[in-house]
Parts: sequence; C-alpha cells; structure tokens
Amino acid sequence: MRDVCVIGLGLIGGSLLRAASAAGREAWGASASPVDAAGFDVSTDVEAALRRAAEQDALVVLAVPLPAVRDVLRQVGSCAPNCLVTDVTSVKSPVLAAARSAVPDARFVGGHPMAGTAESGWAAGNEALFRGAAWVTCVEDDTDLGAWAEVARLALDVGAHVVPLTAAAHDEAVARISHLPHLFAEVLATIGAQGGPVALALAAGSFTDGTRVAGTRPELVRAMTEGNRDALLPVLDEALGRLGAMRGSLASTGGLAATIKSGHEGAQALAHWRAQTASGIRLDLTAPDARAGLRAVGDRGGRITAITEDVAIGEVL
Amino acid sequence: MRDVCVIGLGLIGGSLLRAASAAGREAWGASASPVDAAGFDVSTDVEAALRRAAEQDALVVLAVPLPAVRDVLRQVGSCAPNCLVTDVTSVKSPVLAAARSAVPDARFVGGHPMAGTAESGWAAGNEALFRGAAWVTCVEDDTDLGAWAEVARLALDVGAHVVPLTAAAHDEAVARISHLPHLFAEVLATIGAQGGPVALALAAGSFTDGTRVAGTRPELVRAMTEGNRDALLPVLDEALGRLGAMRGSLASTGGLAATIKSGHEGAQALAHWRAQTASGIRLDLTAPDARAGLRAVGDRGGRITAITEDVAIGEVL
Repeated sequence: MRDVCVIGLGLIGGSLLRAASAAGREAWGASASPVDAAGFDVSTDVEAALRRAAEQDALVVLAVPLPAVRDVLRQVGSCAPNCLVTDVTSVKSPVLAAARSAVPDARFVGGHPMAGTAESGWAAGNEALFRGAAWVTCVEDDTDLGAWAEVARLALDVGAHVVPLTAAAHDEAVARISHLPHLFAEVLATIGAQGGPVALALAAGSFTDGTRVAGTRPELVRAMTEGNRDALLPVLDEALGRLGAMRGSLASTGGLAATIKSGHEGAQALAHWRAQTASGIRLDLTAPDARAGLRAVGDRGGRITAITEDVAIGEVL
Repeated sequence: MRDVCVIGLGLIGGSLLRAASAAGREAWGASASPVDAAGFDVSTDVEAALRRAAEQDALVVLAVPLPAVRDVLRQVGSCAPNCLVTDVTSVKSPVLAAARSAVPDARFVGGHPMAGTAESGWAAGNEALFRGAAWVTCVEDDTDLGAWAEVARLALDVGAHVVPLTAAAHDEAVARISHLPHLFAEVLATIGAQGGPVALALAAGSFTDGTRVAGTRPELVRAMTEGNRDALLPVLDEALGRLGAMRGSLASTGGLAATIKSGHEGAQALAHWRAQTASGIRLDLTAPDARAGLRAVGDRGGRITAITEDVAIGEVL
C-alpha cells in the first residue's frame, strides 16, 4: 500500500489522515497553520512533507481550500515533481487546469469525496467520514490508469465507493445537486429573515429543510460556487428561466401546475433511482478502452467498489 | 367545552376529530367521501352534520382543501348560519373574504395549524399531530373575541400554541417560510433530475434537504401556493430579484459574497431566534384594545399558551 502525504489538515484532510492511518498506511500531513493532532505525524512544514513524499514515492493529497490549491501545486512542482498527486476539492476542471500547468511531470488524478458536515477544521474530522460516501475520481483522455487505480484504492481503503467521471461531468452534476441547492438555501434564508419575527416564529419543516445548508461557513460556500462558475452559470440560468416562467404563469393564469408536476416527478425520479437494484460489472484496467469503460460506469450513475490486480469491480443501475 | 363539528376528514380534519375527542369534547365529522373511522362519529352527510352543529351550538371546523371551502361555506350558510366557524386551510385572506360573503351571520375566525406531514388522508392522521405546533388564529378589526377565544381554546386543548395574527400578516409570512420553500424545492428537484444518472448518483445532503418537500402531493402544493397568489407574487419577485443580482455578479466579477453573507446571516438569525428566552405576558380579552394587544403578541413572534376566564396568557421573545 502506497504511503500518503496529506497537505491541508481541515475536516477532509484531517479525516483522511486518520482514515489512511487506520487502514494501515504510512501517512503524514502538513498544514500552514498548526493543528493539535497528538498521535499523528503532522507538521507545519509543507515543503519538508512534500520532500519526504518524493523520497518515499508517496501519493500526495491536496486537501487545502480551492483558493490555495495553485500555491500548493507550485510547492509540489518544486519539492515532489514526479509524485502521484490527487486532490479533494469540490470543483474539478479548474484544479485539473492548474495541475497541468504547475506539475506537468506529476501524474495528477482529480478527486472529490462527497462527504462533509457543516463543521470544519481538524477537530471536526473523524476516520469514518468517508464510509459509504461517493468519491469521484476523474478519468480524462490522458489519465494514467495506474495512477487512477492508486487514488481509487485509497478511496476504497477509507470506506468510500469510487465514481469515475471526467472533471467536466463532475462539475456539471455538482452545479445541479450541490451548488444550486446551496445558493437557493442562501436566498431562502435571506427572504425568511426579511419577514421578521412573524416569519421566524412560523418557520417550520419546509423552511428548516430548505435553509439547512445556509448555516455552512460562507468561505466554503464561496469557494465551491465561485470556483465552479463556468458550470454553474448555465444551471443558474436554467433555474432563473424556470422560476421566471413560473412567476409569469402565477401572475397571468394563476396556475403553477407545470412547475409543481415537474418538481414532483423529479422527486420521484430520485426516490426510484435510490430504490433500484444494481448489477455487477468487471472492467479490465489494461484494456485499450478502459478509460471509456470507467467513464461509462460513472455516466450511468454506477460505482467501483473494489480493485483487485488490474480489474475494477463495481455495479451499475 | 364546546362541541366540535369537523367537515373534511383528511390528515388535518381527521387528526383534529381524534384530538378533540381525546381532549374530552363531543366531536363528530363528515366528509363527502367515506372514511374508515371505526370508533368515531362520522358520516358522509355533510348537511346533517351541520344541522346537528346548529342544534348543539357547536364550533364548526372547515377542514376541506382550499378549493372546496367556498362550497362548504355555502352549506354552512344554509344549515348552520349562526354557528361559530373556523377553518384549518393554509391561506387566510381568501377564506376570510369567502366567509364574509357566504356566512355573514356566523362568527368566523380563520385558523391555520402549522402541522402536517408529506402523507395525507384519514389513515395518516393522529391525535398528537398538533402537539407543540403553532396554530395561527386570526384577529381582524371586527373579530368577535369571544369567538376567537373559543377557537383558541380548541387549539390549546389539542396541544398547540396560538399565534394571533391578521389574515394578511399570516399570508405574507407563510409565502416567505412555506410557499417559496415549496416552489424552490420543486425547481431544484426538476433541475437535479435534468442532470440524469450522474446527478442522481451524486445527490447527497444539500440536494436531499433542499428537495424534501417536492415529495408532497402536487394538489396540496398547488392549493396553498395558487391560493396565496396575492401575497406570494411580491415574495417571488423578491427572490427573482436576489437571484438575478446574484447571477449578474457571478457572470461579471465572479463573486457571490453578498448573497452568501446575507444568507448565512439569515440562517444565524433563525438560530438566535430559536435560542432566545421568552418573557410571560397576560392580556385581558375584555379590554378595549385587546385585539391590538393580541396582534402585537403575534407580530413580535410570541404565542398564547393558555386562556383562563377572560385572560390570555402567553410569552413573547
């Protein structure tokens, strides 16, 4: 099992350091600001941690916030230019572009564990954070599948399942199912608060559910939404188009049937999706069309659940 | 304790019939379609139930869906024109207007228990549904406070607390904290489903929370949102204005700081609101300014928790 060097020791990085250690790997970490991580091998010397990664041929995991990724990639380029590198940030295309320019010799594979809580920081982390979570692991046309398999094995080792997607497919999907929901929650919270004490006193289930993620730290929401601007803008326009048509219909005929029917069908689609039975699949990672095969699994909403030798084992719905 | 006649035996009406009976009141009900309500005094003869209400001077509770309220009010006008009447529908101004024209002699007091589940029908009801819920009980300039106290006592008897508001204040607040959240959930569910299998496979916390109420039966969402059109349109315009400004900012500077800061403050305002300590208040219901006093409690987000003789006891924050 390859050693793991985690740069950035917040909620995700801190949980990954714990989980990789618990899985029996040699793992160390560094972050610019000190953390109280008794029992773990951590420091504030990022460059020393990266030089050790180069010596031990470790997998380097970038777990810093998106705005800091470019600077850390530059440090990787100077201290560990030939290492395997992955990241855990919530937007994949901008990180891929930055990695291609900063560390051309590194074998970079983008990643995104779909796990998190409203809390943050080392103290909020725990080794079980990734159990049962989807971990998107990017497959581009030029992805080294050996490197991809190393990143996927780490995700599997810490209890996640792996979803192979291109960076672009990931970013489009999370704009729909994470970034837009966050922005809707922010607007709902503002409009509720504008209603003053009466609105706050009457707020119940639909408002509490609809605004829950507005409690997330603003800098985290900014990093993910602003960082995914290219994929988010068309989704936001789709939402504005639907809301505008709805507003027009309410003002003219008074009817909201089309909006509500469509939304209810969407909710049922999700429920049906989750109730489906999966079929098993096996993919030879040395086959010439292995990249296309992996991406087809992700595109159908499937997952990889194990990797043995050169075979990826998973399921599709 | 005044007898109770419940017209409409779905989730809310059925739960109220059970809860009023459990509180020791004589209670009977009727609904146009038969329900399997062994042990309860129910029938499909709405007019007979209303004539009995007239004979026993009962409190008549309209628990039919909003689109059916006008027809039932007409039946009340012919069978029980002098009874106390209240309702439990989710929009208050249209019902008040309908009651004023259909039953001018009845003492009508609008009501809205803020309780419910995604389920519906008699079988989904239970006598504990209203425990701990806010029950808006309308106070207009011409409201008979004797009638108001009778409706409030029923709400208190079944475990709710009473929030005194005008119909207009209620409708404005629920547009913000219930109807807009429902419509946002419908649009989010549609946009998620448009993302196909990848989006459905990656959907997690923020999407599940943000779309939960899109699972509500479409006819219920239509009734409450379309029925509250006058109060909902300006709130929808406020939302569209904020979303449009946000879109412009993301497209031009790439920044979403203002939207996210405001939403986070809104979420904190709700959390702080819920953490406050209440102070007790007492209101003499026979005082000349009693209506204004009650409305001031509701306008400050307060509640009435008991009524003894002619005194309303409650708390404000």
